[in-house]
Amino acid sequence: MNILKLASRATMIAALVPTIALAAQRSHPVETLRDAALNDDLAWEISEGLTTEVGQRMAGTEAEARARTWAVARLKALGFANVRIEPFDMPVWVRGAETAEIIAPFPQKLVLAALGNSAATPASGLTAEVIGFASLDALIAAPAEQVRGRIVFLTHRMGPTQDGSSYRPFGAVRQLGPSEAARKGAAAIVIRSVGTDHHRGAHSGAQSWATGVTPIPAAALSVPDAEQLERILKRGKPVSMRLVLTPRQTGLRQSGNVVAEVPGRDAKAGIILIGGHLDSWDQGTGAIDDAAGIAITAAAAKRILDAGRPLRTIRLVWFGAEEVGAFGGIAYQARHAAEKHALVAESDFGADRVWRFDTRFADAASPTAKAIASALLPLGIARGGNEARGGSDVGPVAGTRGAIVDLRQDGTRYFDVHHTPDDTLDKIDPAQLRQNVAAWTAMLAVAANSAEEFGPVTPPARP
Amino acid sequence: MNILKLASRATMIAALVPTIALAAQRSHPVETLRDAALNDDLAWEISEGLTTEVGQRMAGTEAEARARTWAVARLKALGFANVRIEPFDMPVWVRGAETAEIIAPFPQKLVLAALGNSAATPASGLTAEVIGFASLDALIAAPAEQVRGRIVFLTHRMGPTQDGSSYRPFGAVRQLGPSEAARKGAAAIVIRSVGTDHHRGAHSGAQSWATGVTPIPAAALSVPDAEQLERILKRGKPVSMRLVLTPRQTGLRQSGNVVAEVPGRDAKAGIILIGGHLDSWDQGTGAIDDAAGIAITAAAAKRILDAGRPLRTIRLVWFGAEEVGAFGGIAYQARHAAEKHALVAESDFGADRVWRFDTRFADAASPTAKAIASALLPLGIARGGNEARGGSDVGPVAGTRGAIVDLRQDGTRYFDVHHTPDDTLDKIDPAQLRQNVAAWTAMLAVAANSAEEFGPVTPPARP
Repeated sequence: MNILKLASRATMIAALVPTIALAAQRSHPVETLRDAALNDDLAWEISEGLTTEVGQRMAGTEAEARARTWAVARLKALGFANVRIEPFDMPVWVRGAETAEIIAPFPQKLVLAALGNSAATPASGLTAEVIGFASLDALIAAPAEQVRGRIVFLTHRMGPTQDGSSYRPFGAVRQLGPSEAARKGAAAIVIRSVGTDHHRGAHSGAQSWATGVTPIPAAALSVPDAEQLERILKRGKPVSMRLVLTPRQTGLRQSGNVVAEVPGRDAKAGIILIGGHLDSWDQGTGAIDDAAGIAITAAAAKRILDAGRPLRTIRLVWFGAEEVGAFGGIAYQARHAAEKHALVAESDFGADRVWRFDTRFADAASPTAKAIASALLPLGIARGGNEARGGSDVGPVAGTRGAIVDLRQDGTRYFDVHHTPDDTLDKIDPAQLRQNVAAWTAMLAVAANSAEEFGPVTPPARP
Repeated sequence: MNILKLASRATMIAALVPTIALAAQRSHPVETLRDAALNDDLAWEISEGLTTEVGQRMAGTEAEARARTWAVARLKALGFANVRIEPFDMPVWVRGAETAEIIAPFPQKLVLAALGNSAATPASGLTAEVIGFASLDALIAAPAEQVRGRIVFLTHRMGPTQDGSSYRPFGAVRQLGPSEAARKGAAAIVIRSVGTDHHRGAHSGAQSWATGVTPIPAAALSVPDAEQLERILKRGKPVSMRLVLTPRQTGLRQSGNVVAEVPGRDAKAGIILIGGHLDSWDQGTGAIDDAAGIAITAAAAKRILDAGRPLRTIRLVWFGAEEVGAFGGIAYQARHAAEKHALVAESDFGADRVWRFDTRFADAASPTAKAIASALLPLGIARGGNEARGGSDVGPVAGTRGAIVDLRQDGTRYFDVHHTPDDTLDKIDPAQLRQNVAAWTAMLAVAANSAEEFGPVTPPARP
């Protein structure tokens, strides 16, 4: 990352946008806006400001409330219209103490982090024998008597993928493993972090208990610690582990979505809903997840705002409480479902370059899709398919047959950092961040001024 | 690292040793031993075993004692002669709780680790205003009234170097900064970690208080946290920080050196002293610092042992208590100074490939130096100069005019991991580890069978 940062801005932009210098029509408004965005500083300033002046902003906490105050001030200062907080309540779980220790045969401490909604151990800890499973399927297949009263260790072999597609199968370890272990009477469960790095920060993340299951302590070991535990188990001796996890449910608390608008000329043309999420996990400062996303979309919207009133209204939403259950998106949908949404798009996959452009458009809108694709190609972004899925915040509204655009970011290193203490500002590469702003600016410049209807479309299947 | 590990052993070895296939004299004993060592598994087994079955082994603790027991059993099983522990006492400092929090203007937690010999804060913590300095020189130049009662934050810009030469100037921040801050009446000091990574593990390390100075709490922030604090200070508002650090001095405890030998044919020819250190810092499992070093030297010595009795005795020492003050090397020197040491060499700079071969030989020994250089060249190792310095453990004995060999390892990524929780087995690349074993095997095969005297030489100047 440092090497990327050391390269001059000019070099990086040249590398990212090899054909810009060859473009003939410098006066085309979309291209002009797009190319100017390659010099954007606003997205960096928002990312830097939020992560520095607020830091972590766990949903429903006082820190997330400070983030909303910060956001409203920043968005008003930028000149957006109708800047406001739309509050909602949601259940809040907070982390407590968390330590793990091998008692026998090889005494040593391990690094772990409680998973969302984990139950607590006694304050004095819980000691039990460890039983290891190489996959979720192996745990599912195991007889309950093998598991009962033990600490389940569930491992896997997640690897990096550009499109992030490895998150779904390996994420199942976190989503489904704890309930499966609890169902079989396990005393607790520790999983290998759902991540692709080899650092000693554990990857936290949400999981929810299956109906009827009694919650147990559930945590993720850092990847090196998970590999250590595998090696220890391979020695074939009984392995005894002591866990101290003291998270707690604190009941309903207030979160909220922060909304800002670029007013359009034609209210009937429908809203273009864009944004990311303001909340973060609590270990890092939420730089790539998702300060970058709210910064990219805000910086692009600001460029459209400054370019003169577009046809359609652009509504920028910095959603609250995404990480812990997408409560902000659900609250938005409940409040705004009746409004006409022409298009939704979300940025919530880090800050690395956009490499692919997907739509979910009705056939009639293919000229607009083509115009966007043309504007994106000089940024190194290839046209994908027509099966865009949107993000978790805009998903509920998109589920009402709204059209979707995905500007897909390179996720190769995203799961090195995702939900870890390492999610800090230094992980954002300013040059790639600018390419994101240029892509969003170009997309909005076309879509906000197109008179075509993009939908209705068949919504994506939700898991 | 993963990419390196995924490459097949054959590919890696081909890359590391491009000319081996062209060598004509496959029957030369040095070359045969060297090339066989490129398939070594023993160094990996020792690294894996020690880091898995013992884990961290802080000097003078029960964990280091377990490591000695482990070491004696392993070295005896390998068939070395005269395997023994040579115990000594040393003062032991142990880590306690350690938390840091910005109270104002932007409340948030920071990650840090106490430095060796740090004083403790009250158990309830210490809160004071932060004053930042961009360099040790700036702190030295500051009037005491600026510093008195405050928490000094001392930052720097250490970058990676292949030869590790950046450690000395930037390491001064850790070695000298705390005493300088204490001298000026600071309440505490936090430094930017002496490291080259951007992960949230702080780099610990030894520092000793200057004469007459009263110890204060002293800790290292992780690099991302140090950069965060710089950004916060740049806002120009008073910054208030709360520190909780509860390390303590526990008095004199027992440590020890573990010694093993390959007996030579001629006691008068002098001993070849090789090794690394058995102890580690307490946050990681001490894989690159220095399980790798003791493993490389042991694996090479084992190959000489198995090849038939050499002319000179090779003494392998796994030193105790290096990290906290090189007590093992001092104890060794006190016990063995009267013995004739023909040559000393240490491996204590990670597990990446050897790229350079330095000597400190008398002129008369240059034929041996040339023979070693010839044997190393096919491993991609270039001849350096005649100003080898040895390591911190063998330094005291080398200071008695003994000859020295340095097999210098690539340190480009060493300070990403050094003294952090990230120093775990996965940071060792097996292919590069084997190249180290081959280099040490070749060097020993020549030096242990050469009848030349390598010294006496002028010892290196010690700082």
